[in-house]
Amino acid sequence: MTVSDRWLLPDGVEDILPPLAGQIESLRREVMDTCQRWGYQLVIPPLIEYLESLFTGTGHDLALQTFKLTDQLTGRMMGVRADMTPQAARIDAHTLHQEGITRLCYAGHVLHARPQHMLTGRTPIQAGCELFGSSSEEADLEVIRLMLDTLKVAGIDSIHLDLAHVSIYQSLIEAADVDEQTRAAIFDAMARKSIPELDELLGEAPAGSPGAHLRTLARVSGGAEALKTARRALEGAPVNVLSALDQLERIAGRLQDGHPELKLGFDFCELRGYNYHTGLVFAAYVPGHGDAVGKGGRYDAIGQDFGRARPATGFSLDVRALVYLGSRVGKPRSVIWAPPEPDASLETAIAELRRTETVVRALPEDVSVNPAERGCDRVLVKREGRWIVEQLD
Amino acid sequence: MTVSDRWLLPDGVEDILPPLAGQIESLRREVMDTCQRWGYQLVIPPLIEYLESLFTGTGHDLALQTFKLTDQLTGRMMGVRADMTPQAARIDAHTLHQEGITRLCYAGHVLHARPQHMLTGRTPIQAGCELFGSSSEEADLEVIRLMLDTLKVAGIDSIHLDLAHVSIYQSLIEAADVDEQTRAAIFDAMARKSIPELDELLGEAPAGSPGAHLRTLARVSGGAEALKTARRALEGAPVNVLSALDQLERIAGRLQDGHPELKLGFDFCELRGYNYHTGLVFAAYVPGHGDAVGKGGRYDAIGQDFGRARPATGFSLDVRALVYLGSRVGKPRSVIWAPPEPDASLETAIAELRRTETVVRALPEDVSVNPAERGCDRVLVKREGRWIVEQLD
Repeated sequence: MTVSDRWLLPDGVEDILPPLAGQIESLRREVMDTCQRWGYQLVIPPLIEYLESLFTGTGHDLALQTFKLTDQLTGRMMGVRADMTPQAARIDAHTLHQEGITRLCYAGHVLHARPQHMLTGRTPIQAGCELFGSSSEEADLEVIRLMLDTLKVAGIDSIHLDLAHVSIYQSLIEAADVDEQTRAAIFDAMARKSIPELDELLGEAPAGSPGAHLRTLARVSGGAEALKTARRALEGAPVNVLSALDQLERIAGRLQDGHPELKLGFDFCELRGYNYHTGLVFAAYVPGHGDAVGKGGRYDAIGQDFGRARPATGFSLDVRALVYLGSRVGKPRSVIWAPPEPDASLETAIAELRRTETVVRALPEDVSVNPAERGCDRVLVKREGRWIVEQLD
Repeated sequence: MTVSDRWLLPDGVEDILPPLAGQIESLRREVMDTCQRWGYQLVIPPLIEYLESLFTGTGHDLALQTFKLTDQLTGRMMGVRADMTPQAARIDAHTLHQEGITRLCYAGHVLHARPQHMLTGRTPIQAGCELFGSSSEEADLEVIRLMLDTLKVAGIDSIHLDLAHVSIYQSLIEAADVDEQTRAAIFDAMARKSIPELDELLGEAPAGSPGAHLRTLARVSGGAEALKTARRALEGAPVNVLSALDQLERIAGRLQDGHPELKLGFDFCELRGYNYHTGLVFAAYVPGHGDAVGKGGRYDAIGQDFGRARPATGFSLDVRALVYLGSRVGKPRSVIWAPPEPDASLETAIAELRRTETVVRALPEDVSVNPAERGCDRVLVKREGRWIVEQLD
């Protein structure tokens, strides 16, 4: 290993430098403060857990995304969290174990074994909110509205919000009664919206059957009209499917009331990335960027695996991606340059200023340095025996 | 695996719940803000790196503390950071590569394969500052003073600061010219202050020899008088030893000038835990707690391994331990309870309040809930057609 190799970082892993690091920190704080003003309480889940806890109720995708470690104390397998939502669900179900509604928020690094998103590589900074104990549509609406609020804080204005409902596909595929292998092939073809494949896989399904409904569903996506088309096409579908469509319509209507500028869309094939979801799901997009900037939905089943069934919904987003995509302009910090000489009155003046201001104290090596080159816009100088701050020319 | 096992966390790993999580977040912010007011710029180093980068110049201890992972993309070994200081040094030497002085700060989770401290287990939240490019004593003083300032922010008032100098022991052991095995045994015996072992290992060293000096050194520790005793006992020692003692004396004097209340101590055997340090080192203690609450010192050699020799000094601390040990009293957040009914004027009132206040919106499940039981101290009620906030009785 040569010197030049030692600073190579793995693919999808990077140093975040000034001023970007400061912008991320500042947005992270504002997102958390927004969540807290909606009544969500901060939790700090651990970076590592036993694999069984991390994967409970979450499906295969998360297992592939998770870095595994051996616990030297017990020899058991642990993982570095790839998603904090299941951790929040575990905290709600077991650690907190409160009666009634529990609202939690969190922010922290997660690790992905393979890069999931272009912008964020393998070390996204996930922030999110989770609402436990309510199966109401008001709860679904609350987390969507809160997500829209946090995106606004990030300076993301033009949002396209996709709504979907996991149980539409699930009810139809169950009613279709196909074998495991066909089921997996259909799931895959749906996610890729591959109509020819679906036609082949479901081709012989008679009109009005679940198979025929699935085939139609893959052809339907878009704005408000897609919901109407789906409703017509799915006439006679299982009752769960119809009530999911009803719910989508109600939620869409109520969201649009408060956010008339919001572009709403419906996509009945969007199933990938919802590892543990059971009901209404949503994802926010910005123009020109393929990955969702925020997503979430209902997942009523995870708590069960931790020994306590709780209705749950929530969202999460990547703070780093938001900084890249948002329009927040960080104004540069004003910095005061202080001379190096030891002087008790100077020490006092600096300590006083540092209560509110940024003061860089020159070191002996700085003797010929121009303060402006060090990002300073003001200097501390002695005039008539007193230390005062002056603007740099 | 039964349901009850799924929520077991590994030893030394824990969920941080409200209100502790909020207190940690708030202290984390204040520590970072303090560092930034001293001119330290925030960086966010990655959670994982190739092992070669993580361990460069850091010695064996850190390797034992580091969880290893296989990079699925390249098959190379990576590690989860156990210490962010070497990451900051890599960023300074390679990624930033600035001329002159560079000041960096950071805060984040690190992982330890084995618990290092009682209070913080295996997932401490490390915060710290590093100053690159100055070999001056002013730089050493700056980082110590900044550390004392951040400890004050944490509400830690009664601080005992131990000063030491790595090159005292190093110069003596090199001059003693003993074999590797004896050297390791001496290091170990020094760290444990085991006088009998040292006497046996160094017994035949003639008076005034490096071996005799080492033997004496282990007997000397304490306040200002220890420095005087050491100076007398080490008469005739190599020049590096004497100049290190001079430096300790100067630094101690200047620190005491600005902080007359500070209890200073000197311990010439304190070598453990300084994995990459080369000069003056320091550690802050609070009464009744054996682990340092903040520590650091000079490490001029790491940059060399990244291809750029830079003098460096800095400190780091564990934000979680500071919250446990500090005397900050978090005042409970005032929370407003808002009724569940859909009403456009209520939505507007809530949105308005949430710019500055915390508002919990009741959900349908909350119909018979007492707002006080949910931590609310005020309620939003409609009086004469207007929504107003009232104190709960």
